[in-house]
Formats: sequence, structure tokens, C-alpha cells
Amino acid sequence: MKWTTDARKNLMFFSGRAHPELAEAVAAELGVEVTPQTARDFANGEIFVRFEESVRGSDAFVLQSMPFPTNQWIMEMLIMIDALKRGSAKRITAILPFYPYARQDKKHRGREPISARLIADLLKTAGADRVITVDLHTDQIQGFFDGPVDHMHALGQLAQYVRDNYGTDNICVVSPDAGRVKVGEKWADALDGAPMAFIHKTRDPDVPNEIKSNRVVGEVAGKTCVLIDDMIDTGGTIAGAVRVLKEDGAGDVIIATTHGVFSDPAAERLASCGAKEIIATDTLPIPEDKRFDKLTVLSMAPLLAQTIREVFENGSVTSLFDGNA
Amino acid sequence: MKWTTDARKNLMFFSGRAHPELAEAVAAELGVEVTPQTARDFANGEIFVRFEESVRGSDAFVLQSMPFPTNQWIMEMLIMIDALKRGSAKRITAILPFYPYARQDKKHRGREPISARLIADLLKTAGADRVITVDLHTDQIQGFFDGPVDHMHALGQLAQYVRDNYGTDNICVVSPDAGRVKVGEKWADALDGAPMAFIHKTRDPDVPNEIKSNRVVGEVAGKTCVLIDDMIDTGGTIAGAVRVLKEDGAGDVIIATTHGVFSDPAAERLASCGAKEIIATDTLPIPEDKRFDKLTVLSMAPLLAQTIREVFENGSVTSLFDGNA
Amino acid sequence: MKWTTDARKNLMFFSGRAHPELAEAVAAELGVEVTPQTARDFANGEIFVRFEESVRGSDAFVLQSMPFPTNQWIMEMLIMIDALKRGSAKRITAILPFYPYARQDKKHRGREPISARLIADLLKTAGADRVITVDLHTDQIQGFFDGPVDHMHALGQLAQYVRDNYGTDNICVVSPDAGRVKVGEKWADALDGAPMAFIHKTRDPDVPNEIKSNRVVGEVAGKTCVLIDDMIDTGGTIAGAVRVLKEDGAGDVIIATTHGVFSDPAAERLASCGAKEIIATDTLPIPEDKRFDKLTVLSMAPLLAQTIREVFENGSVTSLFDGNA
Amino acid sequence: MKWTTDARKNLMFFSGRAHPELAEAVAAELGVEVTPQTARDFANGEIFVRFEESVRGSDAFVLQSMPFPTNQWIMEMLIMIDALKRGSAKRITAILPFYPYARQDKKHRGREPISARLIADLLKTAGADRVITVDLHTDQIQGFFDGPVDHMHALGQLAQYVRDNYGTDNICVVSPDAGRVKVGEKWADALDGAPMAFIHKTRDPDVPNEIKSNRVVGEVAGKTCVLIDDMIDTGGTIAGAVRVLKEDGAGDVIIATTHGVFSDPAAERLASCGAKEIIATDTLPIPEDKRFDKLTVLSMAPLLAQTIREVFENGSVTSLFDGNA
Amino acid sequence: MKWTTDARKNLMFFSGRAHPELAEAVAAELGVEVTPQTARDFANGEIFVRFEESVRGSDAFVLQSMPFPTNQWIMEMLIMIDALKRGSAKRITAILPFYPYARQDKKHRGREPISARLIADLLKTAGADRVITVDLHTDQIQGFFDGPVDHMHALGQLAQYVRDNYGTDNICVVSPDAGRVKVGEKWADALDGAPMAFIHKTRDPDVPNEIKSNRVVGEVAGKTCVLIDDMIDTGGTIAGAVRVLKEDGAGDVIIATTHGVFSDPAAERLASCGAKEIIATDTLPIPEDKRFDKLTVLSMAPLLAQTIREVFENGSVTSLFDGNA
Amino acid sequence: MKWTTDARKNLMFFSGRAHPELAEAVAAELGVEVTPQTARDFANGEIFVRFEESVRGSDAFVLQSMPFPTNQWIMEMLIMIDALKRGSAKRITAILPFYPYARQDKKHRGREPISARLIADLLKTAGADRVITVDLHTDQIQGFFDGPVDHMHALGQLAQYVRDNYGTDNICVVSPDAGRVKVGEKWADALDGAPMAFIHKTRDPDVPNEIKSNRVVGEVAGKTCVLIDDMIDTGGTIAGAVRVLKEDGAGDVIIATTHGVFSDPAAERLASCGAKEIIATDTLPIPEDKRFDKLTVLSMAPLLAQTIREVFENGSVTSLFDGNA
Repeated sequence: MKWTTDARKNLMFFSGRAHPELAEAVAAELGVEVTPQTARDFANGEIFVRFEESVRGSDAFVLQSMPFPTNQWIMEMLIMIDALKRGSAKRITAILPFYPYARQDKKHRGREPISARLIADLLKTAGADRVITVDLHTDQIQGFFDGPVDHMHALGQLAQYVRDNYGTDNICVVSPDAGRVKVGEKWADALDGAPMAFIHKTRDPDVPNEIKSNRVVGEVAGKTCVLIDDMIDTGGTIAGAVRVLKEDGAGDVIIATTHGVFSDPAAERLASCGAKEIIATDTLPIPEDKRFDKLTVLSMAPLLAQTIREVFENGSVTSLFDGNA
Repeated sequence: MKWTTDARKNLMFFSGRAHPELAEAVAAELGVEVTPQTARDFANGEIFVRFEESVRGSDAFVLQSMPFPTNQWIMEMLIMIDALKRGSAKRITAILPFYPYARQDKKHRGREPISARLIADLLKTAGADRVITVDLHTDQIQGFFDGPVDHMHALGQLAQYVRDNYGTDNICVVSPDAGRVKVGEKWADALDGAPMAFIHKTRDPDVPNEIKSNRVVGEVAGKTCVLIDDMIDTGGTIAGAVRVLKEDGAGDVIIATTHGVFSDPAAERLASCGAKEIIATDTLPIPEDKRFDKLTVLSMAPLLAQTIREVFENGSVTSLFDGNA
Repeated sequence: MKWTTDARKNLMFFSGRAHPELAEAVAAELGVEVTPQTARDFANGEIFVRFEESVRGSDAFVLQSMPFPTNQWIMEMLIMIDALKRGSAKRITAILPFYPYARQDKKHRGREPISARLIADLLKTAGADRVITVDLHTDQIQGFFDGPVDHMHALGQLAQYVRDNYGTDNICVVSPDAGRVKVGEKWADALDGAPMAFIHKTRDPDVPNEIKSNRVVGEVAGKTCVLIDDMIDTGGTIAGAVRVLKEDGAGDVIIATTHGVFSDPAAERLASCGAKEIIATDTLPIPEDKRFDKLTVLSMAPLLAQTIREVFENGSVTSLFDGNA
Repeated sequence: MKWTTDARKNLMFFSGRAHPELAEAVAAELGVEVTPQTARDFANGEIFVRFEESVRGSDAFVLQSMPFPTNQWIMEMLIMIDALKRGSAKRITAILPFYPYARQDKKHRGREPISARLIADLLKTAGADRVITVDLHTDQIQGFFDGPVDHMHALGQLAQYVRDNYGTDNICVVSPDAGRVKVGEKWADALDGAPMAFIHKTRDPDVPNEIKSNRVVGEVAGKTCVLIDDMIDTGGTIAGAVRVLKEDGAGDVIIATTHGVFSDPAAERLASCGAKEIIATDTLPIPEDKRFDKLTVLSMAPLLAQTIREVFENGSVTSLFDGNA
Repeated sequence: MKWTTDARKNLMFFSGRAHPELAEAVAAELGVEVTPQTARDFANGEIFVRFEESVRGSDAFVLQSMPFPTNQWIMEMLIMIDALKRGSAKRITAILPFYPYARQDKKHRGREPISARLIADLLKTAGADRVITVDLHTDQIQGFFDGPVDHMHALGQLAQYVRDNYGTDNICVVSPDAGRVKVGEKWADALDGAPMAFIHKTRDPDVPNEIKSNRVVGEVAGKTCVLIDDMIDTGGTIAGAVRVLKEDGAGDVIIATTHGVFSDPAAERLASCGAKEIIATDTLPIPEDKRFDKLTVLSMAPLLAQTIREVFENGSVTSLFDGNA
Repeated sequence: MKWTTDARKNLMFFSGRAHPELAEAVAAELGVEVTPQTARDFANGEIFVRFEESVRGSDAFVLQSMPFPTNQWIMEMLIMIDALKRGSAKRITAILPFYPYARQDKKHRGREPISARLIADLLKTAGADRVITVDLHTDQIQGFFDGPVDHMHALGQLAQYVRDNYGTDNICVVSPDAGRVKVGEKWADALDGAPMAFIHKTRDPDVPNEIKSNRVVGEVAGKTCVLIDDMIDTGGTIAGAVRVLKEDGAGDVIIATTHGVFSDPAAERLASCGAKEIIATDTLPIPEDKRFDKLTVLSMAPLLAQTIREVFENGSVTSLFDGNA
């Protein structure tokens, strides 16, 4: 005699403590609750996590954003994943709206780490089967994880907002450095084939790592410039780019970014750099004291929730992007 | 025609930024320098590390202590190990004088992580081949790492200090809780078979996790009590133990511990708890503002240096302990 | 056109040849049959196993107890798991009511194995996804396995038996050595906060590994002592403990243990050591010739069956222990 | 609140470009379609593959035959499996009707690869969970893959065809070399215990790897010889065997093989070697220009389809062979 | 009694059959011989490799270039590495002057493979400990391999050649698409801060993947344009870029590339596209029939040999690039 | 300042308790001592091992033969390897003169294990880097281990003994079953191209697994038959083969085997089966009570010692066999 049962799948949604607002928003979109848990910090900084409900057999989705202090939240996520693995979750999907250490995605020089790969390996070691993330610093980071990565893009929402508020007639897409030109081209496509420009940083050969000057490559005079970047940390580069664009006769400058890291003194710099508007998403928490008049924040919660739903129900995530993920 | 060369081994010593004093002391004992490196924190908390010298083919020893904020230093160590691995170090030994998350070495209840095992796996994933550590919270943590672990003990130095300063005639070794009695027995052996006692914590069955009372099991009246523990964090348990001992008529109480975590308000508590002296080692940094009159700090640098030397030269580490490691 | 089917789960229960009585009892509790198999020994000791029914897609639970000769049964279990893996079982849970080599859970001295970790790795290598076990020698062994471990406890049944037969008024819980005091504390909690004691073994510093004397720490005079241990092998330690307790004026001594290894001459020793009753469970087979008048054996079959059921149906195992597994 | 769903399984069938006829035949037997995909070759030989439908959550079966150029098709299969893994297929079964590099299943001499094991490891690394294959060169190759291997046999169909067309009265089963005698014995069993013979190749000790002569061991005079082999590549060995048999007075010679590799000049050799009929299967494509009058090709599509069905529905594959797989 | 010996390291150099000229040139620079081996192709395309000398304990360097047919050479390299691993080579370094499948370094859309990561994993699985490569399509591919990658750059030689032959006064560095602008910036730095431009490809939103027009972004009129790319396959993109530059009034156009894949009709296109000179390296073989008047080929053999020497002798590879590898 | 040292290699030789005579003989040939160790059995069958000397940095060779009870000796070997790994041995070579479970090298039917692969994986998991073994049941088992396997052959010594004592003029090499014919061919080559025969076992189709009759295929009348097998367990098959040969008119029958398992009643059967002489090696211990007049035992110690020496000194093991290992 054998004993059989229906193998029903059970979605459970978990959240680290880094960005509860986003987790609540995603949960609300999904119509589920964030699974209650105990999470506390020992005096020496060690973290303890315990889930209040059985996770056995669940299809577990764990969301953790990665603001300052990043390492704290990485460890919390790894510990949560370990607890899920040891608690017999059936499948564990790590959701990192902002992938940490993404800027360290290669060795710029010898004897450096490739911390973005390390993060992927740590997630795997802890027990993550899959990853969902948004706008990686470079697309190749997908390949750092040994398993499925659903790579979401904020471009759709951001470009739609620009189109709605500024039209596409007089737009020029500007990349703040040479490394973002490829992404700029996607923006140009999304804005009806708008022209492009980028800031060329020349280095002084006599002084290592010293920038000598910034030149605009491309025509920006009189244009409404959409200055794009995947993330803005302290805002120095992007504020410098606005200044150079203005010197070259640019019209309005709109800054659009997915990840508003906004480390000090980003808020101040952005508010005063001469840009007309700064558009970001909520992949990272932006506390009240870092918000300012010109800042617009779009929510990624609907897109993340829709992705989770498709993953859970084995739908197509690709279709969320017209074939772009 | 073939090309051959001597395969000379090259010891290189590295240190994270958590406890530079200990690293310098170990390096001085070894007669080597801490390898120069660039280590800095990005504004959002991400860490960058780069070594200033080629590490190719080296026998690399990386020391990182784990004070507050622990997660920061864990990630720094993992990143350093990744950089060594990618820089072609031949063998990488992670030295953790204080093993982090050691208290989370089992599931106390369901749906908990086993973070001490996770740490071992993260070290392995990053690239560590071996581990050197001191006085693990439980000996079994050795088995969490898939490779050689050299487990050092401070008992020799600590017990010698007690013997030199208090003799062994009227000593009673006291464990502050049931879990440390086994270690207490080693202390008793080291102090000429001194008698033992421990504090029995009884729980209230009607209130989960609530301690109802603490009783001393064993005879302590009139004895010089050596109250031992592997680590002291906020000092609440140990200060409570001193109080209970005093109530039971104990004579002088000496506290001896390997790891002085000393999170607030440990310094204040220990200074005022009634103990005659508190003896700790420097596996963790004890900054000036946490030091107080009754505190004696013994250095583990000589033992760590001697261990590194034996490991590098394939000597016997076991012999450092008369067969006890 | 795609082809879909319900993904029904199918529980199959398997048993090695070490302890068929327990397997039959668990199967009866579950209402399933032990899957028929061919298992035989070649003349040189090699084992051959083949299942008589298809195991494809099953949720397989394999029970093997580990009496003498342990290595035989370990290899049989590994071979069974290999056959299940290669036969396409969907998930394989190894049930070890008595975890073998648990006493070798750390390096006591240099150049020793950590065989308890080795066992965990061998199970994983053969193909086990999960482990169910009872009363590990140390809780940390949970962390040796890279996956979920459901750790059952016999304390509930054993303590209830003591309470029913001896009450809790005059009880003292005694640990036979320093390493079991922590478990003793759980017993004390389970018996209404009974007082505790333990046997302190002092060593002669001049003769390595020689026990000099055993002292009782704690008050036992006139008490009904419950002498507890996780396993009793040859019974030397425990019989010695009874003697020491009696010398210190103890009243009745009751011995309670989970794992009755009972290697010779355990039965004889226990029968004649002066204890009033010896209580054990059936995690290991206790053949007729090792049974004696004072021995009471409680069955773990109901608890194991309930655990399997919860694991199979993704219920909560934690709830079987009021939050203690 | 939790969110649950039925975990329905979804069979998807994929095919590389090496042998579309077999894939279509299997799909037709199964009643599914080969999943549409884009597959193209870059000018430098690199392959690109993309599936036209979502594969998320599917039970994926990927069929690739391995004719010339084998390495091309191996890489295509690995790339397809990688795409399935990264596209979140739930389980991936690699179907290799002809297992490549099977002849390199051991080191014949030092400093050789074991390419058949390498292939198994490459499949695992790419993401294959299971393997289905037909008539491995040696059965031990099953053990090269770390997971379930369903090993199908063409013997049933081939022997039935011989029986139907030649009876079993005057049959002798002949192995073309010493290594196939074991398989010959299975043929003899299948043909009512027919007698056996094999060709003994003697080597000249003075000339390494040089065959000195071929002798028939066993009685073949006047017999209808069924000359069997798992694969026929250029046909040199098998044609030589026919010649030796004829010299020893054999009657009709029938050649039966599972894998018709038929590299040039196999077709010519086989057509003119004196054999009455050559029977092969379609595990490899046999293009029109390699077909000839005496060649009979039996299709393995029904057996492969039935196997896939049993694997998908967790039936018994063993039963397809009366207990022989 | 113990037995000791010097652990001398022994460099052995191996080469696949794809590009023997480069292997011979590297061997000559190193002053070693390419280790003799037997390598042959079976009729069905399978490869057999055997080394003629013992490789036991050697520090093995295996060079394989990856021209058409790429998959053939990948499999040959994996088989050679397997033979080295099983023959007890001590350390195996895979040298891929041109890393195959580098263009498939991310999922451009859903259900695609990341073949560049797959290649890294296959190398690791076969047994490679380290990788040496030249000018990866994207730097992030370094992170795909779990171990040390020495990433060489041809920029030094190529830029020096340009400087020697064309000076740096009137130069403009042009990237043929948005994805190469970052590399273009390194060229601009190497050519005394030359100005930059790139070709912006706009897509027709109504026709997926259709390029609508190519625009030059940046000032090129009258400039000597150095059109750079990491690899040139069929030459369509680069020839189109020359045409667009000429239309925008560019002066001489010089094409510089590391990897001359030169699939048909690249030679014809490049010879007739209007460029003054095409500079490539010999990371890939360029047979006589693909060479033409305007083509200059620089050899990477000295750089590869120097890298091997530094790796073998544990020198600094970074120093070969003034801190850039 | 760096600290360097010569990296001298240090050979250490270890032996399990299964066959101390062979270990001593090999050690004597090598001129080293078997490293002293403590090995004992707990009452319940668990094994404890500890080495008496530091193994740090050693090139460790561990010899274990695998007589009855096989599982005991397998576990002892795994535990010894674990202790070496955790004790920081640099490289660990497992020497299995007789590879256990070699007969279970494939699934004969469904739902069977492939225990020979399992053994290879267990060795790897415990920490073995390399394997040395003698005359595997099938050569393919080499491919089960993920690393170098040095596969020794006793054929040279055995055939030389036959040649010296019986000449080669009237010899016929006989394989006792179809599976050994391939090995028989090697014997025939080694005996100057002697003729061959084998015993064909026919099965009764109506009674599964029942042998119906044994027929000799080939000419044996009047010949001195050398009946060969890799191992003789209970001797039933081989004794039956002698009887059939005698019935067919064979002259003297000589039995030659590498592995004398000789489980009861092998000694009796072989002594009385009619064979003139039985030749075996000492890969397995043959105790006095299993020895008999007609038995000749050749020692493999010289060959094993020579292999260890070549492995340690990175010489060529292949050369020990004229290119056959």
C-alpha cells in the first residue's frame, strides 16, 4: 500500500529588515502577507532570525534591499536563506532589487576581488536556488549565479514617465560616462530613436587614476538632456555631468536612475546641481531626510509582484518586457 | 626540453581592519610584515580591498578578528580571501581568533539557521583552504569546516595566570551555566583537580524562556571562585553569577574568559559586579574606553604566531598543547 | 501541444536490515508497508540491495538503525540511498534513530578524524536530501549535514514515564559526567525544576587520560536520583555513577537513556549496579538476551511515524515538541 | 494568508538539430510537439539557441543524436541544457540515443583521457538531472553519470526481427571481438540458447598494436551466423569478421547493430562484404546516400517515447524490458 | 623513517591542433618544446588525445586557439585537460588567446543560454585550475571562472603600432557601437587623450531587431579615425562603420582589433571597405588566403610567453601592464 | 619582508588493519615505516583511529586491503582519510589492492545501486585525491573516480610464472565466462598468441536467472588450459569450469587469478576440483587455514612499492607496464 497526496505549492514571502516599505508594497500587490519572523541583533552585531510559521515545502521568496550598511543586510539575507534551507523550504528565490557589490564585477587591476561573483556564490552556498533582481550594473552579472536569474528592468516605467512629462521631440539621451553608453542606446530606442551623447573623461597619464577633463561627445546644445545611470551613490559624477552639459549649452537636464543609493551628500548635490528633475525608483529605501523637491520616486513593487507571480505559477517572465528578460 | 624550478614556499601575512594591534603583534612575533593593502569603504558600505604586492604562489595567512560590527568584518574577510584566490595564492588559511556566530551552532528550535555552519561554508566558498581559531564556543564547530581546522586554546595561559596569582589551594572552578561545565572540568584539571560548581538556571514552565531562579550546584562557601566562560558579551550572565556566588558565601571571585566581546554595558557591569579581577585575552580588540582597573588582558599573539609557523613549516601544532589540539 | 499531469506525491518507506521490528512498528503507525526488497550479503561481506517495486518519483524515507556491527549497516544504508537516487526517487530522507559515530564529533586531540561529520557527508554523497534522527550526542551534529535535519527528542516520553512512576517531589536529576549537564538541565525543567547534580571526574596530571576520582557535585542525599544519558554502551560509566551516588547517600537511582547500545557486559552491569529501574527506548534493537527485569523499553515508533507524516505533508515538525525541534 | 496552487507537471520536448527525423517520430509517438526554437551557427562555428516558448517549471526532455560532427552536437546539447536551466525548467532529462565518446570509457594506456566520463560530467555541469540512452558501449558508463540513467536496449527489437526472418534453429551468434562476447551471450539467450563464437585477434608481440591474425573460436561451419555489434563505424572490423567466418565455412551471415555510425566507407564495405542482410536502428541518422539494398533500419522512436512517458508519469521503465533496465 | 624529496616544479607546455604556429612561437619564446602528443579524429568526429611523455606532477599549460570550427577545438581542449588531470598533472592552466562564445555573455532575452559562463564551467569540470586569456569581449567574463584568470591586453602593442605609424596629433578613437565605447576610452587614454566618437545604431520600433540608421556621435571630420573592436568576425559591422565615418568626412580610417576571426567574407570586405590599414594580432590563425595587402598582424607570442613565465615562477603578471591585469 | 622555505615533500605510508603483512612488505620495499597509529573498535563496532606522528604537509599513501568483513575495512579507510585531511596532509593517495564492490559496477536491472561508483565517491568525499588499485573487475571503474587512478596489472607476474613452469607450446587460455574473454585475449597475447576458449552459460528462458548448461566454446582437448579470472570468491564458478573442461578432454588445468577472496568453501573446492595448480597474488590476505598444497601465492608488494615511488617522485607509472597503465 502506498500513500499519496496532492503536491500543492505554497507561496511564502519573506523580507529582511532593510526596506520593509517595499516588502509590504510587494506583499500587498501579491495579496499575501510578509511571513512573521523574529529578527534581532546581538550586541556584537550578530543577527538572529527565526520564522514564526512552518516553511516546510514552501516556494519561498525572500526580499532584501541593500542600502547602507550593505554587509549587514547581505549577512541577514544569507542567514534567512540558511534557515529556510534547514527548515525544508522546497525552493528559495532570493530577490535583490539592488544587487550589492555590482560595481566590483571584474578585476580592474591585479589582486582585486570580483565581489559581485562572490555574492552570487554566497547566495548559492546559503541555499538560494534562484535570483530576481533589477537593473544590474552590468548584464553579465546574471552569469555569475549558477542558476536562473530573472533580471527585471525599470527602463519601461522610467522612460514612460519621461515621455509623459517631457515628450520625445527635443530629447537627447546622455550617458555620464563611457560605460553607460550601451544602456543609453536602449533609452534612445525607448524614446523614439532620440540622439545620444556621453561624457568623455580623459585621464592625465602622469597622474594615475586622475581625471584631467570631461568632454561632451555628441550634440547637446538646446536639447532636453535625459542623463541616465543605473545607480547614483554620492552623486558626484552625475552632478559633474550636469555642469558639463550646461556648459555645452544643454537645455533642461533630467536625471533618471534605477537605484537611488543617495549616500551623503547626494541629496544636497542633486538638489543644487541644476537638473530640473531627478527620477528614481524605490529599489532602495529613500528616507524622508534624503528626499527633496525635484525628486520623483516610482515604485517597482508592481513589477516585482508580477514577476513573483509568474515565477510561482510558471508563467512567462519574458512577456513582462515584450521579450526583454 | 623541460623547464624546472625550485618550489620554494613563501609565507605572506594579511590582516583585515578589525584588530590591527593583534595583527601587528603576530607579525612582529613571526618576523614578517603585514602585507600592505588598500582597503576602503564605499559610501553605501561596500568594501574594496586590493593588495599592494603580488600574492601569486604564496602561502597566505589572513587574520581577521570579529568585534562589532561583525558582519562588516566577515564580509571584508571573504572579500580578501576572494582576492587572494583570484590572485593565485597557493594556499589560504583564514585565522579567526574569535569565530563569529559561534553561539548559533545548532537549531535551538525549528526554523532557525545554523549560522556557525554557514560561516564555515562561506569561508570555503570564498576560497579558504584552512582555518585557525581560538576557543570555539563548542568544539564541534571544528567539524563545520570541510578541511583542516587548527583549534588553539587559551586555557594554558589563563590557568597559569590564575595559578601564579591565586595559587590552587582554595580554588573552586565555577561554570556560569550548564553548557560550560565540560570546559570547567578542563579548568579543574589544569588547577590540580580543584573542586567544581555551576549555576543551575531553572525555568518557569508557565512562561516560555523565562528564567525562574539561579541556584549554585556545588560547594562554594569560602572558596576563591574562578568563574570561567569562553566569551563575555554584555556581561549580564556573568555578573549575575557573581552575585549568586556571593550570596552563597563565596570568597573572592575571579572571572576568566578568552573572548572579551564586552558590548555595552559589559565594562561597567564587570567593574561593579563584585569580582576581584577579570582576566581576558586580546582575541578581540578591547578599546581604551572599555578597559577598567580590574581587567587584565593576556596576549594570544605568541601562540598564534607559533601556530602559523608550525603550519607553514609543516611542524606539529598538536605539540603546542601537549597533545591537545 | 503540451502534456500535463497532476504531480501527486507518493510516500514510500524503506528499511535496512538492522532493526526490522522498529521499521514494522513505524510502518504500522503510518499505515504503509515497508517496500519489499532483496538484500543479501556476498561471501566477502559486500551487500547487494534491489527494490522490488518502482521507486520513480517517490518521496522516499529510509530507516536504518545502527547497532553492532555499525559499519555494515552504514554501508547498507548508503547503498540503499544510491539505489534510490539512481532509481529516480524524487526526495530521499535518511532516518537514523541512532546517529552512528556521534561520539567522534570533534577532534579531542590532533590527527583525529571527525567521523560524525564524515557520516553526514557520506549520506549527502550517496544522495540523501534530508535527515531525521533522535537525540544526537551533541546538538551541533545537526550542522554537520548540509540540508534539513529533523532532530527528534525522547525526553518527552522518558520524563513522562518518570513522572508517572516516581512523581517529581523528591527527584534529583544527575548527569554522569560534565558533558551531559546541559541535557540534565532540560530534564530538570521537564520535572518541575528538580535540583541537579553531576559526577566530576578528576584526572591525575601525572598519568594521561587516567581518572583519579569521581566526586558528586550537588546534593543527592536521600533523593530519588534520575541518572540520565543519551546512550549507554558497555555501561561502565553509568554503573560507576550509581555506585558514587549510593556512596553519597542517594535514595533510589533511576537510569534513563534514549539509546540502549548495551554492548557486553552492559546488561549484566546494569542489572546488578544497584539502580531500581533502567528506562530506554527502541531506537536500537535490544534482543531478548540483553533484556532483564529492571529494564523498561519505550517505543519511538509513534514519534517517528508522526514526524514522517508531517515531513511528507509539509506540516510542522516543530509543533510535535511545543517549539523544540 | 498563504497562496497555493496545484503543482501540475508539464512535459516539454526539445530537439537538437542533429537528427530531426527521430525527434519528430518520438514527438508523434508521444503526441506532443517539438518545442519551437531558434538555433543558428555563427560564422566562426559558435552556436546560438533560444526557445520560442516559456520553459519555466517544465519537465524538459532534450533529445540529441550524435552523428558526425559529434563535437558540434555535443556543444549544442550543452548549450540547450544551459538555456533550460537558466530558463527555470524544473527537471532536465538529456536523451542521447547514441552516447558519444563511449569507446573512450577507460584508459587503455597512461596519459589518456576518459572522455565518456568527461561527457557525463559536462552534461551534469550544464544542468542535466537525468540521462536516457540506448545500448551503451559498456554498461559501466551508466555509473559515469551522477544521477539516474535509464539505459534502453534495442536487443528486443533486433532479436525479434532475426527470429521472424531467420528462425532460431540453425543460428550461431558471433561476436566480432573478445569485448563483445558478453553481449553475444545475451543474444544467444534471446535466440533460444543459440551457440556462440567469436573472432580472436592475435597480436604480434614484435609490432605493438598490430593484429597478426584473426581466428574463429567456436563452431560456425554451415551455421547462419548473426554477427552482432553495438555500433558500426567504418565497418572495417565487421567486414573482416564476415570474411573470416566465410573462410571457416559459415552459411549466411547477418549483421545486427544498434548504432549505424556508418562513416565512409562503411556503406560500400557492408554492401559488398558478403553479408546477407545488415540490420540497424535509427539512433543515428542514416542519410539516403548511406543506405543500400541489404540494409534494414528499425525505429527506436516507440521505445524512446514509451520511456519518456514512464519517466514523466513516474511509471516503471524496468517493466519495458521484463526487468532488464 | 621518512622519505623526503625536493618538490621541484616542472613546466610542461601543451597545444591543441587549432593554431600550431602560435604554440610554436610561444614555446620558442619560453625556450621549451611543445610536449609531443598523439591527436587524431575518429571517422564520426570524436577526438582522441594521448601525451607521449609522463605529465605526472607537472605545472601544465595548455594552449588552444578557437577558430572555426570552434566546438571541435573546445572539445579537444576539454579532453586534453581531462587527460592531464587523470595523468596527475599538478596544476593545469588553460590558455585561450581567444575566449570562445564570449559574445553570449548574458541573456539578451529570456530562454537564452549564457554560453560564456558555460565554457568557464566546462573548463573547471574538465580539470582546469587557472585560465589565461586575451582581451575578453567583456571584462566580466573573468568572473565566470571560479579561480584565477590572468587577463592579458593587446592594447599596448596595438596602440604603440598606431602611435609609431600615425602619431597621435590628429587621431580620433571611434567605437563601432555603443558597447565598445568604454574600451575606446582606454584607447583614447593610450593615445594621449585623443578625442572619441561612436556609431549610434537606431532601431525601428516597428520592426524588431532591425537597425534603422547609423549615426556618428562625436566629431570625426578631417580626423584620422582609429576604429577599434575586440574582434572582427564577418566584418559587416566594421565595414559599415568605415562607410559612415567616410560619409561624415573622416580622414584616413585605421581598423585595430585583437581577434581576427575573419569569417568569410571578412577579408574581401576589409580589403575593399576604404580603410587604410587593418591591424590585428595572431590570437587566432589567419591563413594565407585570408591575408591581404592592408593587413598587419602583430604577434602575441611574446606577451603570452612572458605571462606563462611569471605564472610558473610566481612573479607578478600585473607588472606586465603597469598595474592593469 | 617575506619568509620562504624549501617545499620539501615528505612521503608517509599508512595502513589499515585489514592486511598488515602486505603493508609491511610494501613498506620494506620502499624503505619506510608504516606510520604508527592507534586504531581500535568500540564495543558497538565504531572505529577510532589516531596517528602517532604529525602528518602535516605529507604526501600520504594509505593502503587498505578489503577482505571480509569488507564494510568494516571500507569505513576504516574513509575514517583514516578524514583524519589525514583534517590533519593537513598535502596529498592523499588511497591504495586499494582489491577494489571493493567492483562486481556492482552497473545496474544489471532497475532499482539497483552502482556500488562501485559509490565507493569512488565516498573516497573522494572523505578526502582522497588519488587512487592506486590492481586489476579492476572492469577497466571502466577507473572512470568512476574523479581524479587520477593508477591501475596496476598482475598479468605480467602471473603470465611469467605460467611461462616459466608450463611453457607456452600447448597452452590454451580459457575464460570461465563471457565477461572475461577480453581479459583472456590479453593473456593469450602474453603467452605468445595462445589459442582461446570460454565457457558459454545458457539460461533457461522459463526460469529467470537459472543457468541451463555450460558449454565450452573453442578447442581444449589435450591442451594445458590456463583458466583465468580477476577474482575467485567461493570458487563455485571456477570449479565448475574445470569440470566442464575436463569433460571436454582438456589436459592439465591451471587456475590463475589476481584476487584470492577465497570465501568458504573456496579452499576446499579449489583443492579438490581437479586443477593442477592455483596461482593467486597477495592483494588480499590468505590466512594459513585457507592455504593448500596446490596454491601458489605471488606477492604484489614490489609492484605496489615501485608505483608509490614513481607517484611520489613524479616518475612514469606507465613505464612499469611498457605503456599499459
